[in-house]
Amino acid sequence: MTRTASILAVGSELLGTTRVDTNSLFLTGELEAIGIRVVRKACVVDGWDDLLAELSFALTRAPLLCVTGGLGPTEDDRTKEAVAALLGRKLIRDEEILQRLRERFQRRGREMPEVNAKQADVIEGAVVLPNRRGTAPGYLVEAEGKTIVLLPGPPAEMKGVFAEGVLPHLTRGGAPPGLHRRVLKVVGLGESMVEELVRPVYEAHRGHDVTILAVAPGEVQLHFAARGTPGEAGGELDVLEADFRSAVGPALFGRDDETLEGVVGTLLAGSGLTLALAESCTGGMVASRITDVAGSSAYFVGGAVTYANVVKSEILGVSPATLEAHGAVSEEVAREMAEGVRLRFGTTVGVGVTGIAGPGGGTEDKPVGTVHVALAAADGSRRHERLVLPGDRAMVRRWTTSAALAMIRGWLLERGELD
Amino acid sequence: MTRTASILAVGSELLGTTRVDTNSLFLTGELEAIGIRVVRKACVVDGWDDLLAELSFALTRAPLLCVTGGLGPTEDDRTKEAVAALLGRKLIRDEEILQRLRERFQRRGREMPEVNAKQADVIEGAVVLPNRRGTAPGYLVEAEGKTIVLLPGPPAEMKGVFAEGVLPHLTRGGAPPGLHRRVLKVVGLGESMVEELVRPVYEAHRGHDVTILAVAPGEVQLHFAARGTPGEAGGELDVLEADFRSAVGPALFGRDDETLEGVVGTLLAGSGLTLALAESCTGGMVASRITDVAGSSAYFVGGAVTYANVVKSEILGVSPATLEAHGAVSEEVAREMAEGVRLRFGTTVGVGVTGIAGPGGGTEDKPVGTVHVALAAADGSRRHERLVLPGDRAMVRRWTTSAALAMIRGWLLERGELD
Repeated sequence: MTRTASILAVGSELLGTTRVDTNSLFLTGELEAIGIRVVRKACVVDGWDDLLAELSFALTRAPLLCVTGGLGPTEDDRTKEAVAALLGRKLIRDEEILQRLRERFQRRGREMPEVNAKQADVIEGAVVLPNRRGTAPGYLVEAEGKTIVLLPGPPAEMKGVFAEGVLPHLTRGGAPPGLHRRVLKVVGLGESMVEELVRPVYEAHRGHDVTILAVAPGEVQLHFAARGTPGEAGGELDVLEADFRSAVGPALFGRDDETLEGVVGTLLAGSGLTLALAESCTGGMVASRITDVAGSSAYFVGGAVTYANVVKSEILGVSPATLEAHGAVSEEVAREMAEGVRLRFGTTVGVGVTGIAGPGGGTEDKPVGTVHVALAAADGSRRHERLVLPGDRAMVRRWTTSAALAMIRGWLLERGELD
Repeated sequence: MTRTASILAVGSELLGTTRVDTNSLFLTGELEAIGIRVVRKACVVDGWDDLLAELSFALTRAPLLCVTGGLGPTEDDRTKEAVAALLGRKLIRDEEILQRLRERFQRRGREMPEVNAKQADVIEGAVVLPNRRGTAPGYLVEAEGKTIVLLPGPPAEMKGVFAEGVLPHLTRGGAPPGLHRRVLKVVGLGESMVEELVRPVYEAHRGHDVTILAVAPGEVQLHFAARGTPGEAGGELDVLEADFRSAVGPALFGRDDETLEGVVGTLLAGSGLTLALAESCTGGMVASRITDVAGSSAYFVGGAVTYANVVKSEILGVSPATLEAHGAVSEEVAREMAEGVRLRFGTTVGVGVTGIAGPGGGTEDKPVGTVHVALAAADGSRRHERLVLPGDRAMVRRWTTSAALAMIRGWLLERGELD
């Protein structure tokens, strides 16, 4: 039996041109994990008739309905009132909730505005779901074989009320088997190349949806899932993951919340090496990603952004003759930048990046997207890669940062194997 | 008369945990501009019964329904079939569309797969809306006083078909008055401060919705709109904008698509000055933003990311005595970084940034979020600002980049006034 659910987000602000409902992504993941599939979701303005029609239709589509938003204190907040009207139930003021509301305001040194009192009104027969992060509690109502869950709109409150109030209710008889997701991350291979590498794996494991997503320039993700209890599904996902890892090889760098900069950071921290970066076309983006990681000061010493040729020479010691002979975007300059920044910043590893991000500056020999990445280490190791990247300025720059991080990672991994 | 619309996005991939329907944001803006308000939107899996129920309900809620997705060649693509079934109309194969499809494939050196032939099936009585960017044309069907528009799912195709096929149809009698939006951008003031400054303005101009959004750390946006023809609304928006500008003052830096780094770049390019950056806690993020702008090499020479103290001294010439006496996160060090990077990189302006981004490294005197930004120019100008920023590492870092860019902008504006 697959159970199904419908999600409804209430609020005119969700029908404008800037905001999307992201609460439904969280709810979908949580519901899938306990075997409930979301078959539709909607956003509706806070008009009374619109709200009633939408609630009423949603209940015809799935036995579980999660509603977010419209539980606040203002006149536009009428989700609770609409559900009560639809079910023909009364709203009853709950003195205990009212008291807690007043106390909440008092703790912040304010008196409760009278409009907030309506947040203490409970739909007859509903279970009140406490909200530790805000004033609006959630509600769970069962009627005519359907379950309606009302959740506050602010994401932190919605997540808290769902985890603490709704999930325990939906899993009363023990956690049912559900859909458990896993994400593997790949750097430096295109979508179609990853597809080719992993096809034999997912063809051997029929029944698993595998999605390949190009999430950022230079990075591709493999999304897959397994059904079952967390234990069963986890075991299956481990088998799939192992097979994907051997199919994709070293380009597969991480899983779920891991980032490329985080993985590189862990390897650097473990190696005891120190890093300096010399960037031209990426203009500091590689350093930004490295320093996104808390604790990166343990291995990252610093870097130079050398946009003008004169500072490539003066700050990094790139030979003016090399610049003259090969141009700023060349293997030779990238190599001298890597070694130069390593020496000037006194580190064991240096990386140099130079390229043409566009939109201008391309030539026939060196079109926009031409990038050179080089690595130089104190032990004499040298690496170099030339790329011709597709896309616009932002895409070329972002892709180059991933290529630079991937080079550091690749070198550290090989070095580790030699030890 | 306010006309209303409903939007439906079809596709099981929109009911997962990663993708949201963003097509509806574009459609909402386009419809608002011609006086049509979107009152609801929904996403539905591609099951036949689900699709029929959803289409049928949507038509009860508004006279215009825009459907995106489900026009592709696969078995899961059944939007057209469902609309035909709902209206009791036939699907008729159109030989001209079929021919164009075959030619499209031929131009790419491939034969058309037979499954694609169904993309040439037209709902009886529908207007075919050509798609220059993909294989699936759009359709416009009128029935029982309702208008149903079917658009392909890929955003570029959806936008093209809407602009070229739907908009001309909806505005046949001339562009009706609609809602026209404008965005103003503010740096360095909090949401509540902006609210306080602009309240007198929007209270004086009743009838305009004004929304204040904190879109990124350190940056706040004012969204507002006016109704009317493009000319009328534009005039009203200009009046509002002028009043907002004088209420907010110089912190208001841009409008609509303008970015802070773009505005700073334009000012720098116009001034003939050159810039170098010295960054510690932001780790290259200020340089990243400066170099996001195409053509930034005209004024940006380069920068140093000096994470370790020793490179603050060796690369920038910050005095070890200053570092010892005041610590790396201090006004004195920020000032020496700014002047040092200016001298070492040979520019007319230098900016230095040092701070504690966290999560570790805070003390009682210098809590996490403490940041110093300084500017030094060849004409002897000096600026310094100390901030104590809220939020996590990412937020402190991002906010600091905006503060640094705002300092450059503020100094350039004052300098311009003195000239």
